[in-house]
Amino acid sequence: MTDAVRLNRRGLLAGTAAAIGAAALPGGSRASVPLSGKQAPGFYRVKLGEYEVTILNDGARTFPLPDTFVSNVSKDKALKAASDAFMSAGKVTVPFNPTLINTGSKLVLIDTGNGPSPDGAVGHLFPNLAAAGVKPEDIDVVVISHLHPDHINGLRTPSGAIAFPNAQIIAPEPEWAFWMSDENMAKASDTMTKNYFANTRKILTGMEDRVARYAWGKEVAPGITAMATPGHTPGHTSFAVASGNSRMMVQSDVTNIPEFFLLNPNWHVAYDHDPELAQKTRHKFYDMAASEKMLVAGYHFSFPSAGHVEKNGTGYRLVPVAWSAVL
Amino acid sequence: MTDAVRLNRRGLLAGTAAAIGAAALPGGSRASVPLSGKQAPGFYRVKLGEYEVTILNDGARTFPLPDTFVSNVSKDKALKAASDAFMSAGKVTVPFNPTLINTGSKLVLIDTGNGPSPDGAVGHLFPNLAAAGVKPEDIDVVVISHLHPDHINGLRTPSGAIAFPNAQIIAPEPEWAFWMSDENMAKASDTMTKNYFANTRKILTGMEDRVARYAWGKEVAPGITAMATPGHTPGHTSFAVASGNSRMMVQSDVTNIPEFFLLNPNWHVAYDHDPELAQKTRHKFYDMAASEKMLVAGYHFSFPSAGHVEKNGTGYRLVPVAWSAVL
Repeated sequence: MTDAVRLNRRGLLAGTAAAIGAAALPGGSRASVPLSGKQAPGFYRVKLGEYEVTILNDGARTFPLPDTFVSNVSKDKALKAASDAFMSAGKVTVPFNPTLINTGSKLVLIDTGNGPSPDGAVGHLFPNLAAAGVKPEDIDVVVISHLHPDHINGLRTPSGAIAFPNAQIIAPEPEWAFWMSDENMAKASDTMTKNYFANTRKILTGMEDRVARYAWGKEVAPGITAMATPGHTPGHTSFAVASGNSRMMVQSDVTNIPEFFLLNPNWHVAYDHDPELAQKTRHKFYDMAASEKMLVAGYHFSFPSAGHVEKNGTGYRLVPVAWSAVL
Repeated sequence: MTDAVRLNRRGLLAGTAAAIGAAALPGGSRASVPLSGKQAPGFYRVKLGEYEVTILNDGARTFPLPDTFVSNVSKDKALKAASDAFMSAGKVTVPFNPTLINTGSKLVLIDTGNGPSPDGAVGHLFPNLAAAGVKPEDIDVVVISHLHPDHINGLRTPSGAIAFPNAQIIAPEPEWAFWMSDENMAKASDTMTKNYFANTRKILTGMEDRVARYAWGKEVAPGITAMATPGHTPGHTSFAVASGNSRMMVQSDVTNIPEFFLLNPNWHVAYDHDPELAQKTRHKFYDMAASEKMLVAGYHFSFPSAGHVEKNGTGYRLVPVAWSAVL
């Protein structure tokens, strides 16, 4: 049956105008329903012991790959990694995914996304929360992993009000100490770091008494323990979540996009405060995740933003979670 | 800063009962919203030129890995592949994902899933269609890729009515000729093939005049061309979808689960009718998909069930599509 495999490039790419023979297509020049123009809601649930973990997509930003997006490798290498990941030519896409955990006794949101944006690329946390049946005023605890804009700017509505009016809001003690120090702010020399300091003031000024601080190694909510994973920022924090015999980790920004920095854990993303320490944290975290076969939720993993980590040469590879239609 | 990376296995796995210091948790022993118990809707949209492609999850089946699930490699090797994909120990998970295409002039559903099932594992196509804003009576054309139960059983409601009352229903001519032949049915020797024949009668008897047949190499709907990809079944068909300059392929079952048969294209799934031809088709199809960097929707890929194929040693690897919150 030598000609049995009849698919061919010409047939595929040229298509054909011939209609099917016996089957006359039904009449009408419009489909029975109009184009939707809208994506499905971006939330995904994982049952973890007695807990319900809901990952919420805040959207993604796609932008021309900056020259120094990876500070310690050539732009060509970075462009190759983007191309290998089928990103748009010359660009890089960074998604954002906060995590909501319902422990049964507390409704806990870890990080708040970018807040609503005029261009609609981000700020999807709020409609996705609504799609998941949760109102911002339902949140009992907002846990901040670190004080970068894409994690804290959703704390405020566009009018400046606190977006989660009934929540206790907590941030890592060493993170708060670093960024809220005017002395540290005065010492900042590069534009990015200056902007980060300015943004913390914009969002957090007036909320100082509203934000409590938590310590590494302690529970921030029942079954949710703060893990010290510094480097990305001085007080950057991940979370171990445990219910019954089930465990997962919410890594926050141990790595930025896995297509670059999980495959190549020694690459340094421009946003890392202490790149060497971030690299060391990365190896330690993923060596543990791989050996424990632990489910990991990653803020910058592509939605549904959870998966397992496997060793891959000198780096690691993400095996995305298999979507389950039932909990 | 030698002790800066403080995450450790003991801290992670043991957790700690200590509450956070400064931050007293808000009162109450119940979260502000109850556990949902339900997964998010399983549909995902891709804008393809002027078309809107919506992949719909019908659910998945998880079952103890049968001894002969892969007919030409040892069960140990298959179990290793399942373990590498983080499937449940000793089991294999097979998801099902029909594709809906709104061309603007036609609403076209490719394959119909398993139909509703008492155990709730499958049959999610119908609630997911509803979540996507589509009623079964809105569908203009139902295109069947091949006559296996998980692709045709959704043609009938549990009461036996045609589930898509206003649709033209079309199936591949060579597929229809093979399975609807009583002579072929009489020759079937193994239980699986006998069951497949019996199921075609159960579903299609009484619909013979309702189902038109289409030819390979022709359009089955505007911009949707039937591609001959036989082997899995004698008339197994894939689809090239084209709108403007954009192209994708809906592969149907060129491979069963990619974690096994895309990584190892020479492995034969038990369900293949002509395994050698299926293997040949697989290589031809994925060589083209890889070289053309074509988006591929796979019926048995994990939802959202689309991605790009890259060469990986002697096989291929799936790079799942990056979820986009906007079209």
